[in-house]
Amino acid sequence: MNRITIIGLGQIGASIGITLRRELKGIEIIGHDIDPETAGKARKLGAVDKISYSLPLSLDESSIIIVAVPASRVEQVFKEIEPHLKPGVIVTDTSSTKQDVLKWAESIFAETIEFVGGHPMAGVETPGIDGAQDNLFDHASYAIIPLERTSSEAVDTVVNLIKVLGAEPFFIDPTEHDSLVAGVSHLPIAISIILMNTVSKSAGWVEMSRLAAGSFRDVSRLASGSVDMQHSIFLTNKESIIRWIDGFQDELVAFRELVEKGGDPLRDTLKGAFNSRSDWLSGKINKDNTISELPTSSETMLGMFGGDKLNEITRKLKKRSEQDR
Amino acid sequence: MNRITIIGLGQIGASIGITLRRELKGIEIIGHDIDPETAGKARKLGAVDKISYSLPLSLDESSIIIVAVPASRVEQVFKEIEPHLKPGVIVTDTSSTKQDVLKWAESIFAETIEFVGGHPMAGVETPGIDGAQDNLFDHASYAIIPLERTSSEAVDTVVNLIKVLGAEPFFIDPTEHDSLVAGVSHLPIAISIILMNTVSKSAGWVEMSRLAAGSFRDVSRLASGSVDMQHSIFLTNKESIIRWIDGFQDELVAFRELVEKGGDPLRDTLKGAFNSRSDWLSGKINKDNTISELPTSSETMLGMFGGDKLNEITRKLKKRSEQDR
Repeated sequence: MNRITIIGLGQIGASIGITLRRELKGIEIIGHDIDPETAGKARKLGAVDKISYSLPLSLDESSIIIVAVPASRVEQVFKEIEPHLKPGVIVTDTSSTKQDVLKWAESIFAETIEFVGGHPMAGVETPGIDGAQDNLFDHASYAIIPLERTSSEAVDTVVNLIKVLGAEPFFIDPTEHDSLVAGVSHLPIAISIILMNTVSKSAGWVEMSRLAAGSFRDVSRLASGSVDMQHSIFLTNKESIIRWIDGFQDELVAFRELVEKGGDPLRDTLKGAFNSRSDWLSGKINKDNTISELPTSSETMLGMFGGDKLNEITRKLKKRSEQDR
Repeated sequence: MNRITIIGLGQIGASIGITLRRELKGIEIIGHDIDPETAGKARKLGAVDKISYSLPLSLDESSIIIVAVPASRVEQVFKEIEPHLKPGVIVTDTSSTKQDVLKWAESIFAETIEFVGGHPMAGVETPGIDGAQDNLFDHASYAIIPLERTSSEAVDTVVNLIKVLGAEPFFIDPTEHDSLVAGVSHLPIAISIILMNTVSKSAGWVEMSRLAAGSFRDVSRLASGSVDMQHSIFLTNKESIIRWIDGFQDELVAFRELVEKGGDPLRDTLKGAFNSRSDWLSGKINKDNTISELPTSSETMLGMFGGDKLNEITRKLKKRSEQDR
């Protein structure tokens, strides 16, 4: 069982493949994608050792299955792979919403399947495999949400895998995850799209497009994200996103009034936003204990693989976790 | 008259100084800033040849005065410099709103003063002089709005100056300028600040701040802009900005409904925003003739300066405009 399978070779799946291939010599990375062109690109890019055009065959001999498809396609993929999974295999996903995914995993997979939900807080503008890159996960926060029945050994393995990617794993409740991510990730997507539509639908867009510079480029950036992924986010995290849109609208109305009146209250609000962002960037915001500390990492990941080459990885992982202290 | 004066050595003023000093050897760049620390930094950075701590003295022997202060301080600066300006001197500004600035120029300056309003569509996140840089204006659009009474020679000189900066000058009506810029520049600032406030005021901000990644960083970026500059934009372009906030709110309400319903109309809207932005990035949007073509550039700028060294500049400018063809 010297294999890892990645299902879905978009920006996240292919970037995972690239990094794992660099870090885990001796472990074979098998890739599958419903789009043969994407699969071909992944092969060329060095994101996988081998492509399997058959989904069931891609699972053969793999001890870890990484499902990196948009949230709205996760259920279907879980159903398709379930009959082919061997007891003890670890399945993890990377999708942006977690409540639905956890429910699907619980109801679809047999109890012998070890499921650990995951969500890397990382991404670049270029959607799909063309945006895949080696250092995508460097220092990125990576949410981990196991099922209750998942063994601590399986959880540790996924924690180790995430560390190998260069990311920083943390544990969070799925409901909390979806609500918080709706605020810092899905609301910005909505805002970016709404800005793009507001401006491009206006009568002056042809002239405006010449004036639009860096500020417009940044705030509208997320409108260039993958339509499939975005659609699936809005479908699977609808309630939280609507709550955040409503909160944003309240602030919009309040801000409009401040602009109307001008003066110190407006300036204070500008200053407040400036300070909040500085504090965020500098990491000044106090951590409390809502986001749980990581359990001690163990060597379970290695326990799952055999062979001499894997001793190398043990040493690497140990060194890494020593450096972290 | 071998001098250019820059009043206000923030990001824009200091960047202009850096580029002009590189491009216009033999012309002395005099800088002034109300903040002595900023002035000192500009000197160290090589943004100016000389600092003048007296505003009137900074104008001595200069044929071009560049006023690079926030829009809300432009009127005061115009009043302070007016008694010291010699007939025929060219004054230009760089502020983000133009209707008020044009009115102030018309009422404050004598008819012998040549005023040409300007607005470079460029800027980086770091506010003030710390964000100053050499290539800030490369290929940036640069709006030019002269007074009606300004001579075509003075306009040509400013056009040439803007080309020397590496920017692309275009003519536009001040009312149209303020309305269009409100959409592509001031609305994004408002949106960014409102997003920052919505999220940072929420109960979950401490946890969320750990999850916030690239998408949040980009869409909230403008909340880190200069509070002075932003405040002055909201004061001097209030009506246009409020119209755009209202337009944004209509789109926000419509988008919320789409999220509520899900399905194809939502996907179409996501796809629409994606396509609009792609067209913008690739320059596919048709230009029409609302933004006027440039007049032929002339050598008036050189006519204003004497000396052999300036022949060099003539050649440079000629070469540049030949390359442009």
